[in-house]
Amino acid sequence: MFKEAVYHRPKNNYAYPYDENTLHIQLRTKKNDIDHVFLIHGDPFIWEDGEWQTDETIMEKSGSDQLFDYWFVEIKPEYRRLRYCFVLETEEEKAVYTEKGFYEEVPLDDIAYHFCFPFLNRKDVFTAPLWVKETVWYQIFPERFGNGNSELNPEGTVPWGSEDPKPDSFFGGDFQGVIDHLDHLTELGINGLYFTPIFKAYSNHKYDTIDYMEIDPQFGDKETFRTLVQECHKRGIRVMLDAVFNHSGYYFAPFQDVLENGVNSPYYQWFHMWENEVETEPLPNYDAFAFVSHMPKLNTEHPEVKKYLLDVARYWIEEFDIDGWRLDVANEVDHAFWRDFRRTVKSVKPEAYILGEIWHDSMPWLQGDQFDAVMNYPFTNAVLKYFTQQYSLNQFKDQITHVQHMYPQNVNEVSFNLLDSHDTPRILTYAKGNKDAVKLMYLFQMSFEGTPCIYYGDEIGMTGGEDPDCRKCMVWEKDEQDRDIFRFVQQLISLRKSESAFGNESRFRFKEHEDVLVYEKQKDDQTLVFIMNPTKQLKTVTLNDKVKRKLKMEERATLNDSHVTIAPYGYFVYEKE
Amino acid sequence: MFKEAVYHRPKNNYAYPYDENTLHIQLRTKKNDIDHVFLIHGDPFIWEDGEWQTDETIMEKSGSDQLFDYWFVEIKPEYRRLRYCFVLETEEEKAVYTEKGFYEEVPLDDIAYHFCFPFLNRKDVFTAPLWVKETVWYQIFPERFGNGNSELNPEGTVPWGSEDPKPDSFFGGDFQGVIDHLDHLTELGINGLYFTPIFKAYSNHKYDTIDYMEIDPQFGDKETFRTLVQECHKRGIRVMLDAVFNHSGYYFAPFQDVLENGVNSPYYQWFHMWENEVETEPLPNYDAFAFVSHMPKLNTEHPEVKKYLLDVARYWIEEFDIDGWRLDVANEVDHAFWRDFRRTVKSVKPEAYILGEIWHDSMPWLQGDQFDAVMNYPFTNAVLKYFTQQYSLNQFKDQITHVQHMYPQNVNEVSFNLLDSHDTPRILTYAKGNKDAVKLMYLFQMSFEGTPCIYYGDEIGMTGGEDPDCRKCMVWEKDEQDRDIFRFVQQLISLRKSESAFGNESRFRFKEHEDVLVYEKQKDDQTLVFIMNPTKQLKTVTLNDKVKRKLKMEERATLNDSHVTIAPYGYFVYEKE
Repeated sequence: MFKEAVYHRPKNNYAYPYDENTLHIQLRTKKNDIDHVFLIHGDPFIWEDGEWQTDETIMEKSGSDQLFDYWFVEIKPEYRRLRYCFVLETEEEKAVYTEKGFYEEVPLDDIAYHFCFPFLNRKDVFTAPLWVKETVWYQIFPERFGNGNSELNPEGTVPWGSEDPKPDSFFGGDFQGVIDHLDHLTELGINGLYFTPIFKAYSNHKYDTIDYMEIDPQFGDKETFRTLVQECHKRGIRVMLDAVFNHSGYYFAPFQDVLENGVNSPYYQWFHMWENEVETEPLPNYDAFAFVSHMPKLNTEHPEVKKYLLDVARYWIEEFDIDGWRLDVANEVDHAFWRDFRRTVKSVKPEAYILGEIWHDSMPWLQGDQFDAVMNYPFTNAVLKYFTQQYSLNQFKDQITHVQHMYPQNVNEVSFNLLDSHDTPRILTYAKGNKDAVKLMYLFQMSFEGTPCIYYGDEIGMTGGEDPDCRKCMVWEKDEQDRDIFRFVQQLISLRKSESAFGNESRFRFKEHEDVLVYEKQKDDQTLVFIMNPTKQLKTVTLNDKVKRKLKMEERATLNDSHVTIAPYGYFVYEKE
Repeated sequence: MFKEAVYHRPKNNYAYPYDENTLHIQLRTKKNDIDHVFLIHGDPFIWEDGEWQTDETIMEKSGSDQLFDYWFVEIKPEYRRLRYCFVLETEEEKAVYTEKGFYEEVPLDDIAYHFCFPFLNRKDVFTAPLWVKETVWYQIFPERFGNGNSELNPEGTVPWGSEDPKPDSFFGGDFQGVIDHLDHLTELGINGLYFTPIFKAYSNHKYDTIDYMEIDPQFGDKETFRTLVQECHKRGIRVMLDAVFNHSGYYFAPFQDVLENGVNSPYYQWFHMWENEVETEPLPNYDAFAFVSHMPKLNTEHPEVKKYLLDVARYWIEEFDIDGWRLDVANEVDHAFWRDFRRTVKSVKPEAYILGEIWHDSMPWLQGDQFDAVMNYPFTNAVLKYFTQQYSLNQFKDQITHVQHMYPQNVNEVSFNLLDSHDTPRILTYAKGNKDAVKLMYLFQMSFEGTPCIYYGDEIGMTGGEDPDCRKCMVWEKDEQDRDIFRFVQQLISLRKSESAFGNESRFRFKEHEDVLVYEKQKDDQTLVFIMNPTKQLKTVTLNDKVKRKLKMEERATLNDSHVTIAPYGYFVYEKE
């Protein structure tokens, strides 16, 4: 037994309250090392004759990645308190794993040996808005989605789609353009819109804010924005805005004041300046996003800055009823700020969604006191690489399993699962034009746990490489749209809504197969089986169960009694008996 | 190489800001498995020709416990941002450990592989009050320390020390009794007083609060308490009170109201009641501390309760200038409450100390947003067992090393290191009267990192078994006090102050020796060597360095050139060249 591989530590993904009555306990062991794991658990204050009274519950092996097996069990402690340890068994050996190390027998004479979840307080339960679990997001880069009011076109605007975008192109996209095309979104079936920044800024991407309290005039005015939100809400679509609070833009008035007055500016402390005299060239002599002089880092510890930004957070909810904030470069801002941010946002709209942009392990932000979710880039990476043959099936399964076990289940249920964005090449381009591969990516994304996001235009087959190429104008001429992809995505979204086991909150488990992706989704009485063949060979898969109902079958898949033959990029989804 | 044993995850003891410029990085590997570890690190935004630019810093093996080696390095990232991975080397093998798993070479083409400490924000640095590092605490159980005003004696008070305490005994200890004996404390050299509860309560221990805004009349009135704090402050002694916020007492007015009016009481929501009708027998039908019906758990999520308790926290600081709060049963109260508690306390007195009573792994409370420290029971357990021959030297070293590596260094520096308390047998009794063993415990406690605490009376050799026996009346007749222990402890406290490497903030390292405890403390130019022999045999230790100065030498230790011979329970402390 490899004791050194065994890991558990409470109050993160290894032990957390799933809801106010339920604890989830997870254990990590070396892959294929342990046969059975039992949780020994009890209330810390129930004793008899000097012996702690415990129950024993077997743990389920919930998944494996490259190096580890993960074990899971759900416990509903009667008095909301739990002490526990683990019994690990192989054919030859038994070991008891406690907070104080390994023992041969469960130490029942002293509670201090045992792991502790002291009390399940409701306030500490990670609680994201319920509606997010049922949401399919659609990301809009407002300068490029639709030009509905040409009077607002900024100087130098070129005709819609007349050329490939350059870093400083303007095509005049605006709110009216979004309002005009809401039917497209309703037809597709999405019910959440994520807008990249809309506040007054210098660039076309608006990540260099000039005024957080104003709409950029090229997009419209506040009344148009109010109408946009109202029209979305009428259609059951939620609206999320982008909060760029890590840094301001160069033309943000307080920063301009600092540029002008240096250390004598009343705003000098609003940033992280290093010297009395400000220099922007060749590199800024102040903290900035990366080393970008026109994106000076805001001092979010300063009471005035904090108040200003929290007022911003509150204003757009109170005045325009937006439903969520996506937080740009969220990981570089202090945790104390985000705790106050959550407090502020939830006090004005308890059901608002708070989504952080973090590319790495985000557990410290997902404890219930800061974010509701993060952008799930490890998911993105695994899907892109596997369906374009850069990852083997095992690498894919390892990485997806790892992602699932990195966070609590209630975090995974609202994880923001994207395939691409304004910061990356579009999926069709990434897949070198392989539309079938893209369809499989969508099939996986839409049937996975979490909340999927579609980048505008991907659903009609738009292409584009690295920024700015991935920010082309939305194509509105139907005959230039790939309606086949559109119908495919539309049907997946529809299945997510109609089949309870298809979407979120159903149990996902990979099934063993040598070279074809097979997984099950199970919820209540329904179990769906997904089979996909993103290889270049024809594959045959023997079915271990009876097909109750075909849900979705690619024409290149053929079902014969107990097996299915699938051509390259074919797939088959069925409900089993 | 046992890759499965390698562990690192940022934002806890494995990676944390030590101060606003410094990151500490720790890695865990299987014991004796790896020869060298290097940290590969750099700013995430410094690239050249498509390659991330990194530095390499060797990590120090900072300690080992039963299963693991721990590696440590301190980094001061120029721009307060860090990405990093680890290179592990054995004679035969090299492996690169990243956030995304193991590789053969450092992946320099994509930053996403690497562990991330995104930004060192000052607000997120764990910061305890500086004075705590220099504090030696003394715990007073006020009913038993001194009876200075017999007019306050509660009904049924028996003469001071006239009998062994029973669970409901009263001896009339009070504030005047403490004031009268402050010279004893000054003489001993302590500079922090921790009082178990002093608020109006029913029992002699006062953990069953009746009114959090009133002093228990047996102790005196608010003016006497004010005098007590002032007299302490005059002598450079800080004062910490006990906050019993997890539960109230049975006679707490709101609970009495609930008992009387059940679900119709306006205070019904102040507790966690299960049913409309309240029952206290045979077991309470409401949440309580353990199953103790007269200690009903407070609903600290309720705004009124929260406001009441935070007002309490503020009141005793603002009105009486107390210096700290020790939090009873701190682990069962919600984290959200403690965050607001810290905010409240630090807003009225930034230098107040917040100490949680937690007996198990406390990392979730020690992230900088809740407590400054916890009571270090794992330390207690290791010391008690080793110096009474229940632990081997190796078990002791393993456990102490484990304790040191469980938490960040800035946490360890203010950890509350106790040997006993009102909840446990006294050390002299635990050691079966072996005074020499007790002296070695003190020598270890006083020379270890963290902030030591002496339980009243231990310093004069008082004895006592489990509660209530450990709560005997303080002995004030000098000829009944063990003045030898007093002088011993007094001298240790004095050395802690006079020798910079003796006390806190100096580097502690165990040295190899088969059966004698040897460790070094090093700070700046000074290195002290501690040798103790808590065995029943005479031992000889060869010195690997020259004795510059003898600091403290037990008469049973004999120094001969290059070695020292130490009789059972002897010790030798010297400064090396």
